[in-house]
Amino acid sequence: MDHGARIPSGLTLDAFNIQQFRESSEATLARLEKHLADASIRGLELTEPAQLTRAARSLMTTEREHVAGYDEAKLNAIIDLYLKTGIQVHSPGYMGRQFSGTFPLAGVVDFVSSLVSQPSSFYEAAQLPNVVEKIMADEFNRFIGWPAGSFAMVTTSGGSLANLTAILAARNDRVPGSWSEGGAADHGRGRPALAVGADVHYSVSRTAGVMGIGEAQLVRLPLNRRHQIDVDRVVPELEAAQRRGLRVFCLVASAGTTSVSAFDPLRELAEITRERGIWLHVDGAHGASLLVSDELRWKLDGIDGADSLTWDAHKMMFTPAPCTMLFYRDKDKSRSPFHQWASYVFDEEPDVYTALDSGGKTLECTKRPMIMPLWVLWAMYGRALFAEKIEYLCRLTRDVHRILLAEPDFETTHWPEANILCFRYRPGALSDSEAHRLQIAIRDRVKARGTFFISKVDIAGPPPCAWCS
Amino acid sequence: MDHGARIPSGLTLDAFNIQQFRESSEATLARLEKHLADASIRGLELTEPAQLTRAARSLMTTEREHVAGYDEAKLNAIIDLYLKTGIQVHSPGYMGRQFSGTFPLAGVVDFVSSLVSQPSSFYEAAQLPNVVEKIMADEFNRFIGWPAGSFAMVTTSGGSLANLTAILAARNDRVPGSWSEGGAADHGRGRPALAVGADVHYSVSRTAGVMGIGEAQLVRLPLNRRHQIDVDRVVPELEAAQRRGLRVFCLVASAGTTSVSAFDPLRELAEITRERGIWLHVDGAHGASLLVSDELRWKLDGIDGADSLTWDAHKMMFTPAPCTMLFYRDKDKSRSPFHQWASYVFDEEPDVYTALDSGGKTLECTKRPMIMPLWVLWAMYGRALFAEKIEYLCRLTRDVHRILLAEPDFETTHWPEANILCFRYRPGALSDSEAHRLQIAIRDRVKARGTFFISKVDIAGPPPCAWCS
Repeated sequence: MDHGARIPSGLTLDAFNIQQFRESSEATLARLEKHLADASIRGLELTEPAQLTRAARSLMTTEREHVAGYDEAKLNAIIDLYLKTGIQVHSPGYMGRQFSGTFPLAGVVDFVSSLVSQPSSFYEAAQLPNVVEKIMADEFNRFIGWPAGSFAMVTTSGGSLANLTAILAARNDRVPGSWSEGGAADHGRGRPALAVGADVHYSVSRTAGVMGIGEAQLVRLPLNRRHQIDVDRVVPELEAAQRRGLRVFCLVASAGTTSVSAFDPLRELAEITRERGIWLHVDGAHGASLLVSDELRWKLDGIDGADSLTWDAHKMMFTPAPCTMLFYRDKDKSRSPFHQWASYVFDEEPDVYTALDSGGKTLECTKRPMIMPLWVLWAMYGRALFAEKIEYLCRLTRDVHRILLAEPDFETTHWPEANILCFRYRPGALSDSEAHRLQIAIRDRVKARGTFFISKVDIAGPPPCAWCS
Repeated sequence: MDHGARIPSGLTLDAFNIQQFRESSEATLARLEKHLADASIRGLELTEPAQLTRAARSLMTTEREHVAGYDEAKLNAIIDLYLKTGIQVHSPGYMGRQFSGTFPLAGVVDFVSSLVSQPSSFYEAAQLPNVVEKIMADEFNRFIGWPAGSFAMVTTSGGSLANLTAILAARNDRVPGSWSEGGAADHGRGRPALAVGADVHYSVSRTAGVMGIGEAQLVRLPLNRRHQIDVDRVVPELEAAQRRGLRVFCLVASAGTTSVSAFDPLRELAEITRERGIWLHVDGAHGASLLVSDELRWKLDGIDGADSLTWDAHKMMFTPAPCTMLFYRDKDKSRSPFHQWASYVFDEEPDVYTALDSGGKTLECTKRPMIMPLWVLWAMYGRALFAEKIEYLCRLTRDVHRILLAEPDFETTHWPEANILCFRYRPGALSDSEAHRLQIAIRDRVKARGTFFISKVDIAGPPPCAWCS
């Protein structure tokens, strides 16, 4: 029989104890401070999963233990293990390309978000994050150049999800009836198809499978020697696709490919797609951040001609992951990806508050207020901090390139456009496959030594290479 | 001309200054402590977006300012504004149902994740989070009951994305060729279709549009008086769908619907779907957490018969959002949603390390190590803390129900299965639409007063209601 709600007993009160919150925060802060201050050269200490599992299990309370509760020594051991087994992104030994050491203040702001737990899809649940999204959209549009009030931006959980969302908007906008009738709806105008650069991120090519277009309806556009979409071959490829019964509704270009950070020629692609009624989506997850630099912005020349743009702040804006911004040139199109209504989240009668709700525009219902760390850094330092750090990273990469060019036993595959440089060690007369195996062996040995972290990639095209940093 | 990389100048060094990290953390911690300790009754202070925008803009450095840099007074003002304008989830005035005040320690652990910025899709990038995911999968499977080693769990950014991922797995598994040929591939066996409870979360019904199945191919299963899928009408509905040329490949049941937290009859649904080769997905975003309670677990009786299960820890496990776990009964099926390979993320030759990579199984490439806060709480307190708090919340809801039943001017729509109770105030002889408008007016007035936060929902079915808490 139910005798009514009792005040929660010991464990809940213990877990919400404020003194304990302060103590655990202080202890953790001390460890983080030490971690961030350590400027020694470290890479990655790789531990066998079985061994790490034993270590983790030994830190867990078991059901048999009578005294369960907060234990600072246990917390400290957990934090130490967490910090020790991570990639040391704040160390000079870290040379991976895709995720970066965050600005510490960004982490502090994210700490607040973790505790207040705002689902930022709705204004009433996260007022400041929603207002700040609009502010940051306006700030960044200074570098894109759309007319004020005409465009839109939503945040979403990572670049892959942003790419999917944008391509859904493109499909629903350009292939009427596909939401209700299905993605392969033909209507006698050809089978819906997606054109992508041959080197596009896998999250983009996946969308064809995810959205029911079918991977077989993926038109891969050939690249030039600089690993960009070869603009002279785009129209012939689109025409050939049309002859095969395909109707390309969306073309995806990259602003910073994952492998070599190539920037596709956006101005020319915008012209081609506009003439043909094709939606141009730009995956700028990696490279859109260059927009904030006066020195580097030209690499995205023509970006104002894109219909949508993915921009990850957790890559080269140095904020905690995820923080992805998805821009639309036409704000009305931000309602295209999803067509739905639910009374508990979408208000019947929109007002000044619900006008800011983004839940109808994103896949997520609960969504982290991810813009907050970025905004606070921007509010504090303005554009200058980001421009300075991005320009420094790109300059550093060009320096490494210059050094390697002077070394006869090293090959580089491209002039570095941003902070990515692919190179390999190729002494004497090694065959391609011997050289490939040698790189893996060297990289694994470097990794095992734990002092540097270098990422790797396979690249088709002259000359193939194995290392990117 | 390029003169080589210079050491980053003032701003970058300022932003990475360790003393400043400590000071900003201390200042923020003091504010969080005060915020969490405030037990006063608060709801939501709704501010006009235009006014809040002005307040936020006034805290930003402008390009004209010469002295940009860290400013503790500015940070404090930002944090105060952030805390003040959020829903007061830790206050006794908060009665919203879907997101909860997090355990403070969970926020502390998430703070570490924000700073080390581990993309947890790959073992080498996040060793401890990947090991811990396996541990937590085993821990939770104690309450599901699948044979050890036979199932799989991946974390993903929210319940909506987990539902999409599971239904993609179902489609690729049960409708061969759909990844390559498109989601509407027929193969003479009928048009792929999705069966859902009439009251299913909007993220589930959306998937038909997203995946190119087409919303028109959504089979909505009628509910009984308890708002559950009416098990007696499932087979007739499936047969009727078949006669219309539809082939249902997946049935989605709910364990805790969003509106009233109804639990669908899983054991019966598992039997029906198994017999017909239909994939059974259970959206337990809200209610799966009841599995950890000996008192409440029976509501998910038959869960071991599901092919997949969505479980949000950021709802009733009180961790920062997002933290969603997607379980598969058959571990091999966790590879079904996506079919892809990219050399910079997926290793050519799997080994003991890459065997733990989840990047091929999730939409995300960069993914937050979201399991860590949940694991640390579990490591510290075991199951007992969660069971205690969940049972307390459910008991509290039943108490409110009992109180309202005794009040002649209040209506409730259902016996509360979990922590959700829908009720409305209906004095005298109001029509349904008058009563509806009255609830909105009362709720808006309560909200405007800022002392309580109550969420609302429209429910079809006798009697309609407006408030849930």
